[in-house]
Amino acid sequence: MATTLHVCTTCRGTAAAPLGCEGCTVGAAGCGACPLAEGATTRPGERLAHALAALPVPEGVKIVPVECLSACGQGCTVALSGPGKWSYVFGRLDARDAETILAGAAQFEAAANGLIPWRERPEIFRKQCLARIPPQE
Amino acid sequence: MATTLHVCTTCRGTAAAPLGCEGCTVGAAGCGACPLAEGATTRPGERLAHALAALPVPEGVKIVPVECLSACGQGCTVALSGPGKWSYVFGRLDARDAETILAGAAQFEAAANGLIPWRERPEIFRKQCLARIPPQE
Repeated sequence: MATTLHVCTTCRGTAAAPLGCEGCTVGAAGCGACPLAEGATTRPGERLAHALAALPVPEGVKIVPVECLSACGQGCTVALSGPGKWSYVFGRLDARDAETILAGAAQFEAAANGLIPWRERPEIFRKQCLARIPPQE
Repeated sequence: MATTLHVCTTCRGTAAAPLGCEGCTVGAAGCGACPLAEGATTRPGERLAHALAALPVPEGVKIVPVECLSACGQGCTVALSGPGKWSYVFGRLDARDAETILAGAAQFEAAANGLIPWRERPEIFRKQCLARIPPQE
């Protein structure tokens, strides 16, 4: 496992990432099984973690739930890191982004230094990057 | 060197961190030597890097200028990282914060996992944290 995808489970989400069923790609088994369902008592961050766990994980990627990535005003948030690579934090996500996040994690895993060529990045990686940190020396 | 303090040199600053001379603690040699001086052509991020370089660096801390921490709307920005530690990104800084940033970097270096006790953190570490990433496994 060279790439870690940390998922904040305590994120409350933001107005910029409202929950709803429009364009739903998560609740294939029906709203009763959907982590986004109205009335769900879990936090949006936990719903995102559930949505990620329900999908096939790319080779070399490990999903690790974490309590708080300290970007509470920009939730939901995830972080990508790996040995010798740039680390990234992305925000304003919700459970509907799970598939795209995992596709991006696979690209990150494949990139030697974690730098995915700009044009190949998922839109949420281009537009919802909160910060990045250079590789540790 | 166990702790790296990355400083973004391309940050343009934010309205929340205006430049000016009120409360100046940097330009002891006079405005002519001050990286904050009116009319200075360098970017706020570069001025912050200069201000940091002009101060004594805490033991175990290495300052590394970097082009872009991808938090451009929250500049100026710095990041703290070290082996086995949580990494942090702080924003809305300017050159007047240099001394406080270095004091915080020394606390980070002294903390086994990078987690400085909340009450001991400088105010800018409590209120201007943009994101944090767990230690690499």
